Amino acid sequence: MGNTSNAVGSAVTPVTVAELPGLNTLGISMARIDFAPQGINPPHTHPRATELLTIMEGRILVGFVTSNPENRLITKVLQKGDVFVFPEGLIHFQKNVGNGYAVAIAALSSQNPGVITIANAVFGSNPDITADILAKAFQVDVNVVYQIQSKF
Amino acid sequence: MGNTSNAVGSAVTPVTVAELPGLNTLGISMARIDFAPQGINPPHTHPRATELLTIMEGRILVGFVTSNPENRLITKVLQKGDVFVFPEGLIHFQKNVGNGYAVAIAALSSQNPGVITIANAVFGSNPDITADILAKAFQVDVNVVYQIQSKF
Amino acid sequence: MGNTSNAVGSAVTPVTVAELPGLNTLGISMARIDFAPQGINPPHTHPRATELLTIMEGRILVGFVTSNPENRLITKVLQKGDVFVFPEGLIHFQKNVGNGYAVAIAALSSQNPGVITIANAVFGSNPDITADILAKAFQVDVNVVYQIQSKF
Amino acid sequence: MGNTSNAVGSAVTPVTVAELPGLNTLGISMARIDFAPQGINPPHTHPRATELLTIMEGRILVGFVTSNPENRLITKVLQKGDVFVFPEGLIHFQKNVGNGYAVAIAALSSQNPGVITIANAVFGSNPDITADILAKAFQVDVNVVYQIQSKF
Amino acid sequence: MGNTSNAVGSAVTPVTVAELPGLNTLGISMARIDFAPQGINPPHTHPRATELLTIMEGRILVGFVTSNPENRLITKVLQKGDVFVFPEGLIHFQKNVGNGYAVAIAALSSQNPGVITIANAVFGSNPDITADILAKAFQVDVNVVYQIQSKF
Amino acid sequence: MGNTSNAVGSAVTPVTVAELPGLNTLGISMARIDFAPQGINPPHTHPRATELLTIMEGRILVGFVTSNPENRLITKVLQKGDVFVFPEGLIHFQKNVGNGYAVAIAALSSQNPGVITIANAVFGSNPDITADILAKAFQVDVNVVYQIQSKF
Repeated sequence: MGNTSNAVGSAVTPVTVAELPGLNTLGISMARIDFAPQGINPPHTHPRATELLTIMEGRILVGFVTSNPENRLITKVLQKGDVFVFPEGLIHFQKNVGNGYAVAIAALSSQNPGVITIANAVFGSNPDITADILAKAFQVDVNVVYQIQSKF
Repeated sequence: MGNTSNAVGSAVTPVTVAELPGLNTLGISMARIDFAPQGINPPHTHPRATELLTIMEGRILVGFVTSNPENRLITKVLQKGDVFVFPEGLIHFQKNVGNGYAVAIAALSSQNPGVITIANAVFGSNPDITADILAKAFQVDVNVVYQIQSKF
Repeated sequence: MGNTSNAVGSAVTPVTVAELPGLNTLGISMARIDFAPQGINPPHTHPRATELLTIMEGRILVGFVTSNPENRLITKVLQKGDVFVFPEGLIHFQKNVGNGYAVAIAALSSQNPGVITIANAVFGSNPDITADILAKAFQVDVNVVYQIQSKF
Repeated sequence: MGNTSNAVGSAVTPVTVAELPGLNTLGISMARIDFAPQGINPPHTHPRATELLTIMEGRILVGFVTSNPENRLITKVLQKGDVFVFPEGLIHFQKNVGNGYAVAIAALSSQNPGVITIANAVFGSNPDITADILAKAFQVDVNVVYQIQSKF
Repeated sequence: MGNTSNAVGSAVTPVTVAELPGLNTLGISMARIDFAPQGINPPHTHPRATELLTIMEGRILVGFVTSNPENRLITKVLQKGDVFVFPEGLIHFQKNVGNGYAVAIAALSSQNPGVITIANAVFGSNPDITADILAKAFQVDVNVVYQIQSKF
Repeated sequence: MGNTSNAVGSAVTPVTVAELPGLNTLGISMARIDFAPQGINPPHTHPRATELLTIMEGRILVGFVTSNPENRLITKVLQKGDVFVFPEGLIHFQKNVGNGYAVAIAALSSQNPGVITIANAVFGSNPDITADILAKAFQVDVNVVYQIQSKF
């Protein structure tokens, strides 16, 4: 089981071509996701894969946001045995809304799906994106940008 | 020319299969991007396309962030005639860093590339993503989340 | 859980585009496989997908056979948490070799992977393949063919 | 012409990327199939290609079986000049049902289509699939399995 | 057999998705080409397919021209049983250089490969390409263009 | 700007994987096309790409010819800001029909689209296609073929 003692309360254990070289050219990978109570898998995208998620244990709220201009949020609470799809490249997240630990298995349509955690990529890049760009993009004061950047 | 009198100081005029139905099945689209002085095209992704950008007028800072775990920021200042590539699904942005207006032409490797503007999708979805999830993801107080959500 | 009270002692619960229409164009599907003790998932192929298998519970012997002219059999005994790949279109099988029930989750690289159970397709087609063809192919007496066909 | 003096009375002469390296990346290959009178090309699949067959000489019975759960057998007797399609990954076979020799040309939609001869892969793998698995899969006594395995 | 009593002395009998609707989505097609003595299959391209050619009868000179800037001509004289590849989209041709009739079978890597006969498309389009454009492109007098256009 | 002092009065400046290695695997390229007054971009094809053209400056006549058997010519006069599509593999051309210089930007759906200039490939290959084949294909006297070949 993945170690969920971290800021978001979840752990992802991937099996992609990086962990299993035999997946090369085969177009598929998997991941196990463990959630502490209230744990989240924060908003992220897979730039090269659709994700099909199956709940193994617990109750999990899942959601994704459609692209411009609608930005519609689709959410659902899933139980053990339920499945859900996150279309390629869309921003999605999960949250453990049950009482105990939760476990899900993700299948991904690429041997090298990639993961972009939005907060880390936007506010925690190396080096930082200059604060004036993010202040204008998120319509906040640059000091709010500096504050968020300091956490990543 | 696109109207750049808006909060970010830029305007994107797309030519995808939505505007030009004859592009169906042909796997390509384009966009013209106009920038006011200091205007930005805020951080966004194209879930189904790589983008090749050519600068027609002005000086433009471009950047993209690689995926987990590096989150490396790659930036470059481009002049008229320069070209730059944003790989499929990665978060990228542009900023007019010249003295006047700037214009760029983007070619995209899909007739339906999609656009996900990060701030709008994460903080401006309909309905909102619940603030506790975003607070944990961005490691800020929920009041900061509410403040940003109120702008989108 | 699937009902494993059958001749082979296993049950496959698929989630493909037939069960979940939203998978259309997304290039992925999943299946849960339950095994009674000694149960097998008999030799079969997926004509349009690679399969990535993760063991959830129990001990499972997995195997696949490479194509002509080698016909090499690759086998491995997997434990909970192990993963294994069956390349697209190759004949493969699983057997529960632990003491209790076993469960595995399969991810498949197509929304419509297809399943061809070799025994059923060759000896149980509707109508039957004429016995002289199968007798010559399997180098047995036609009466052996008739006997096997009577079971499917 | 291929030498058809063998157990099945047919010979396949392939032209794939293995024989013609220039086919690499080009997505196509061919094969010539010669049939002695009554000769068969036994049930087999191409894991990575659709096959389009043209009859050059003779009368040939062709057939393929659809996937689960129908396992429907589709057959047709073809004359010189007729064409027929075997969809990717499905089990198919041919039999010379004319009076003399027969010849067919197959076009395959991959430079590396692969061939899995069902009898050889299931009963003639190296090493053998254990007999208890095949006995349960084909619903025969293990001695029948041993008998068939001894021929391959 | 195709009727070769025409200006070029050859006849192409295609089997594409237009003639055999079952080829839809299967990615392959075929054609039979009959040649009178000295007959040619004039320079043409297939915009969506690689072609693999097998000689059934006779001696055939085949050739194709690589793309800019080399424009290298590759030719070979083929005998019965020989095979040759024309890569996707390149201009190619065949000529019967034996004493009698000749026959070849082409396999094409698309169910809808398309055929562009260069002379017909350039000098025989409906309506005509204006003569000044062709005169400049082929570096001839407009009267030569008019003369060629009058034949198509 | 490209140098348009040549026989056709145009210059193409490509940005493909040959000029920008980072385009490898990304499936897109671009080109800038400069036209002198009356300059043409002569009939050509891209064997591996669809082209999307945007007019930056001037008035340009564009055209392409459909495949057999219609060979229909589609033309349009484009102004600054107009876009037009040339489907993969079809023969197309442009002509500056305005009073001054003209500029267009092409986006192509491959990192390695290839260019086959029809006149150069057919009449200027190395070595030459034998004149009797071209005379029969274009239905002209061999001396006309020799004359055109002498220009390339």
